[in-house]
Order: sequence, then C-alpha cells, then structure tokens
Amino acid sequence: MSGQRKRLVMKFGGTSVANLDRIRRAAKRVGVEVAKGYDVIVIVSAMSGKTNELVGWVNEISPLHDAREYDAVVSSGENITAGLMALVLQEMDVPARSWQGWQVPVMTTSAHSSARIEEIPTENLATKFDEGMKVAIVAGFQGISPEGRITTLGRGGSDTTAVAFAAAFDAERCDIYTDVDGVYTTDPRITKKARKLDRIAFEEMLELASLGAKVLQTRSVELAMRYKVKLRVLSSFEEQSDDAGTLVCDEEDIMESNVVAGVAYSRDEAKMTLVSVADRPGIASAIFGPLADAGVNVDMIVQNISEEGRTDMTFSCPVDQVLKAERAMQEAREVGSINFHDLIADTEVAKVSVVGIGMRSHAGVASKMFKALSDENVNIKVITTSEIKVSVLIDRKYMELAVQALHDTFELEKA
Amino acid sequence: MSGQRKRLVMKFGGTSVANLDRIRRAAKRVGVEVAKGYDVIVIVSAMSGKTNELVGWVNEISPLHDAREYDAVVSSGENITAGLMALVLQEMDVPARSWQGWQVPVMTTSAHSSARIEEIPTENLATKFDEGMKVAIVAGFQGISPEGRITTLGRGGSDTTAVAFAAAFDAERCDIYTDVDGVYTTDPRITKKARKLDRIAFEEMLELASLGAKVLQTRSVELAMRYKVKLRVLSSFEEQSDDAGTLVCDEEDIMESNVVAGVAYSRDEAKMTLVSVADRPGIASAIFGPLADAGVNVDMIVQNISEEGRTDMTFSCPVDQVLKAERAMQEAREVGSINFHDLIADTEVAKVSVVGIGMRSHAGVASKMFKALSDENVNIKVITTSEIKVSVLIDRKYMELAVQALHDTFELEKA
Repeated sequence: MSGQRKRLVMKFGGTSVANLDRIRRAAKRVGVEVAKGYDVIVIVSAMSGKTNELVGWVNEISPLHDAREYDAVVSSGENITAGLMALVLQEMDVPARSWQGWQVPVMTTSAHSSARIEEIPTENLATKFDEGMKVAIVAGFQGISPEGRITTLGRGGSDTTAVAFAAAFDAERCDIYTDVDGVYTTDPRITKKARKLDRIAFEEMLELASLGAKVLQTRSVELAMRYKVKLRVLSSFEEQSDDAGTLVCDEEDIMESNVVAGVAYSRDEAKMTLVSVADRPGIASAIFGPLADAGVNVDMIVQNISEEGRTDMTFSCPVDQVLKAERAMQEAREVGSINFHDLIADTEVAKVSVVGIGMRSHAGVASKMFKALSDENVNIKVITTSEIKVSVLIDRKYMELAVQALHDTFELEKA
Repeated sequence: MSGQRKRLVMKFGGTSVANLDRIRRAAKRVGVEVAKGYDVIVIVSAMSGKTNELVGWVNEISPLHDAREYDAVVSSGENITAGLMALVLQEMDVPARSWQGWQVPVMTTSAHSSARIEEIPTENLATKFDEGMKVAIVAGFQGISPEGRITTLGRGGSDTTAVAFAAAFDAERCDIYTDVDGVYTTDPRITKKARKLDRIAFEEMLELASLGAKVLQTRSVELAMRYKVKLRVLSSFEEQSDDAGTLVCDEEDIMESNVVAGVAYSRDEAKMTLVSVADRPGIASAIFGPLADAGVNVDMIVQNISEEGRTDMTFSCPVDQVLKAERAMQEAREVGSINFHDLIADTEVAKVSVVGIGMRSHAGVASKMFKALSDENVNIKVITTSEIKVSVLIDRKYMELAVQALHDTFELEKA
C-alpha cells in the first residue's frame, strides 16, 4: 500500500508558526496540498523566539552546559508547534497527528547539539498513512541518539530534518516555507535590481548558503543534492501558485541560466596576516592545526611567494574569532611550533562572491569581476576561486558598492 | 548494587520552579539530601503558568480537541523544567540527569489527559544510579501509552507521579514541596486559629483532599495509602528542618490525635431536588445513570421517605454542572425513563465537613457538629456521613461562619 500515493514534505520555519493565526495559515496551505492528493509530512520549527528563550535559560544556568540536557530543553519548542498544528488540521477535518523525533524515530549520532541524522525508518509513519492519516507533523531539529537521549541538529536544523524526510519517504518535493519568497540574485536590501530566481542549481545554492545567504541551512542543501531532493523555497505569507518561490534542483533540470547566478556577501570578516613565517614543509599544518583546535573557522588562505626562506601567510575568519585566533597563534609561538615576526589583523573587511555553474564553461568571469571592482576603485585584498565561484576580500565600507557593481556587470536583473 | 543506598523522592510544584532563581533554590534543597547520602528522584512540574498557557492555546484551537495531541502539547512544560534542573545540579557538581516520561518509561493507560500509571520499570534509573548518578530529575504529570504516545495524568498529576516513583523505588519518603508549609486544620484564610498539623493519617488526608483542600491531588493520596508511602508536604520557600511540614502517614504512625483532624469546605456547590419521583425499584439508577453519562459529579444523595408511592430525590453537584444536570434530567423525562413533577436547583449552597479518624472510636461528633451550627442559627440542608467524616450542605453565606464555629467547637487550635 505505502509508496503508492504521492508524498510531499512541507517545512514551516519559526516565523511561519509564530502564533496561532500563523499556524492556522500554514495549516491551510497544508490542506491545499492534501486536497491535491498528497500524503504530507510537515516539519515544524518552534514558534519564533521560543528556542532563543530556552537557549537563554540554559546559558544563564551554565555557559559550559551538558549538551545532552541542552538538547532535552531546547527541543521542546518544536513539540509544542507540532501538537498545535495537528490540532488545527484535525479541526479542519484533515486526519493528522504529531510526531516527536523519538517517535518516528529520527535516528541520529550522539553528537549532542550538532547531531547528524543517520536513518529515518519509514515504517511507523507509513503504517499510519496506510491507515488513513493524511498529514504527519514532525517536530523538526530533533532526533534520538543510540543511547535513547534526545539530540538536536544545530541551529537551522529543521531544514535538514525536512530534506531527510523527503529523501527517506521519496517525496515528490520538499517545500521550505519561510519569510522570504525565494532565492534572489543578491540581497534585495542592497540593490532593488535583485531578482528572484525561478530555479537555482544545488551547487549554486550550496555556495550561496555557505557564503552567507541565510535562506537555507548549508547541510540541508548538501543532503538535498546528495539525494536529489527537489527543494522549493517560498513564502508562507503570500498566496501561492504552483510555481511560486525558487526551486533548488539538479542542474540538469535548469534549461538555461546566466553564467553567474548570484552575488553573495559576508559582512563581518577579518583578514589576518602572519608576517615572515619560516617557509618549511609542514608550516601550514603548524599554523592551521592550532587554529582549528581553537575553533577558528578559517575561510580563505593565501601564501605569498617565499623570500629568503620566509613567507607571509594570510587567512580570513569571522571577525568575532580574531581574539581566539590571536591567542592560538601566540601560544603556538610560545611552544615553538611556529615562528613569525608579527601578526596583523584587519577587522574591517568583507567578502563578496559571484557564484554560477555557468562559470565552468565560460572563461573570463574572474577578470570581468576584477575589472568591475577596479572601475569602482575597490581594492582587492585576497582572492579565492572554486569551479563555480570567485570570492574577494575587500574593505567593508565598499561592500555594498561592490555588490551593486557586480550585479550590474553580470546583468543579473535580466532572466 | 541497586537498592542498597537509601532513596528519596522530592517533588517540586509549579510555583517552586517558576523561574531560574526558584529552580536554583529547589536544587539546593536537593543537594542537601544528596549530602545526607540519598539517591534522589526529583519530580518536577512545569514552571507555573506554562501549562495554563499551553492549555489555553489548545482550547483556542479546538474546545473538542484530540486528547492525544493535547497531551503531546501540554506535557512539554515539565520537560523544560527537568532539563533546567539537571543543568543547575550539574553546575553544583551533583551528578544529575533529566528523564522524560517515555525514557523511564512511566507506563500508563491510554486514557489521554487522565491516564493512570500502570507500571514504572526501575531498571533504567537503577542502572544509572549504580553508575554514579545521584539525582534523576523526572518530568512529572506524563507517561507513555501502550501505543507509544505521550499521555498526561490530569491536573495535579505530578503529585501522583511522585508517589508512584516513591512506591516503585521503595523510597524512604516522598517530599512534596509546594507553596504552603503543610496541611492545616482548616484554611488559614478563614480562621487565624488554623493550626499546621505535624502528622495526618492517609484516610484523613484523602477526605480533606476530596473535600476541597487543594494541598495534594486525591489520587496521589490514594496511591500513597495503598503502597504505604510516607508523604511529607512542606514549603519550598522556607528553610527546612527535618521535621518541617506535615507528614501524611499510616494512622499507626500517629501516636495521639484529636478526634477531629480538620474542617474542610467546598464553596461552589448546588443542591438539586427532583420533586415527586415515582418510588420504584431501579429509580435511583434511572436518575443517576444519565447524570453520570452527562459527566455530572454527583456528591451527596438523599432520598426522602416515600408517600403514596412517590418520593423526593435530592443530590448535590458542583454549581457549574447544574445546566448539564438539568438537561440530563429533562431528557430522561422525555424518553420516559423517569417521571417527576419539578426540578428545583439551589445554587447558593456550600459544603462543610469535619474529618477525623478518631470519629471511629468516639461517638457524638455529628451531634456536637449539628449543635454548633444550630447555635449559630445555620440551617442544615443535607447531611452525609462516613466512618471518619460528617458533611453538611448549608447556605453559602454562612460557610465561613460555620467553619469558624466548628474549628472552635472541636478545639482544633490545640494540638
């Protein structure tokens, strides 16, 4: 029986379930899909603000809290929303029930507060669907460890829950309802020319997500790419047509696209330079090992050419990790594992990136980008490239100017 | 190993865990008992107000909600408190962990919203105690049904959770921390002469609880009586000595006591009289069957002597169930199962009761009670008695006067 009816996963974020009225509105959207003949799995976040309140309490008790108890506390917001949504759907005469992570069960690793989903057995939900349940509302962001304790997936984890369910239940699509109506060529707050994309490739979305676009959690995009789950990002605050929002999909499903899909930025970056490090085999690991151990998220890395056996090593990291990075480097110097003349931190930089799968087959994107920035007298401090992305570090004060110039240069306002 | 160390159950109600400061204060009390060498099982309620907020949401969505979803939603408050309490204890270096109902598991019936505990397997907690856990903080009020769904035990259910754990784990005592410092001879708001009892027998407590004294949930007292669990009621807002509060215990453990232990009252009662009912075999069940079906909690019942084959039948019920009762009686008359001339409802009555196990061996309590009321010109409308209690229904406006007079008559201010 199971598997014959078509299935859809719908995920509602915190602002989409912030109060009873919004839960009702979301439930109405679910009802529309049920009427189309779908069995629906709804993934819900906590009402917006609830999880922050719980996290605040935990941190007030103990900044170095037991992650197992943290998970037990902060997972409760999703349980409430799931039950309330089930009640609203029942009130609409839609057969629905709520599921907490352990009831499904959503089996995860034991890495509390940042657990990974290992398996979602489909049996329990499938049985209920066969018995007439039309909607399963699952508490997002949570699971159960092999030890039988509650785990959470880290902030934004409900996106990942949604994609994992779509993969496990072979859903036709995974609709992510949020407070924006799709993925844009760039942040509309920076340029009004920003255009909503109808489709975007997984790889592009992945780059945009990790470059700072906050629409989807990076891990959920990775998962969707791996399992070929069609992801749709759309607004829960607008009337929806069938082609609303942005479809994140395999690049084969995108007929034609611009060479550059979008411009991303990350405002709060820092550039750090170790001046005159001994250039010897193993020096990179002697530097970046301690940084990783200290929890510094190193992003871009550039090594200058060596002169007289010494070189400068430059890297970027989030600006709020500069102190940690400095401490780690001073300690490494004290124990003698590295040696440098000076450590210079520039905390006034930002990262701007252009992303597009078309770059694979089109040369000249980087030089066009550099020329556009040069035309605006924006100095480039660090460059990194990947197959489908070029990122530059620039002075923060030029960030918006750079984004606008690049959006114009690559004519992203045109479909 | 397990079972060798002495065990204590401590239950903290909603006002005792209303915020982080109070949770810290409660945890300190727990720490004191751990230092005495106890393995402690702590049962927590939700922060006061939290459960009401959740219940409010559920009722706003649907007054006729699915009790299974109601349970899933309203049980979450206890989970939060349990996790927070565990974190506070860990911060005090006390090895502690939180347990949700399904993790223990607290196995209940499937009667959602008013489930009964069927079994509490001790294995999971005992293993952890053997491994060094000193405190298990268990979310009260909740359990898991045979179908694997979350159940709740009804309002005040955390008291029952506490007693059930004390019984299952053979605890030396079950301490109920609340916002009053014990059980009083009567409500101190009605007479300042009200005196805190050091000890009270289970049977007396049971009568007082079901007669309206709100210190303990009736079911928890029943359970404590059946399993001989020593219950102590005490305040979480005062410094505690070992003999603080009131011990609810077997009457054998009470050396000497007054004939009357206390005076209870229930303010919002109604008296209903079916005038001139046919007096025939089966008439009582023809009346009280439909009332029970309609959910009317009939309390006192009096049948007048029969004249010419007809009689008057009087019963009492909570005043907010009068409409339900009237409807049930009219319907029964319409279908012809009963016949009466009139149905008179007096919604201005209250019940006053004197309770004491000493009444078993001392005659004359009832007549002394009636004389005291008569001396104050309080008219008695209905009387019921049991082995250890006499209850009367009187005009509500005389209720406080009656309570004061009875407290004086039986000299309850004296130990």
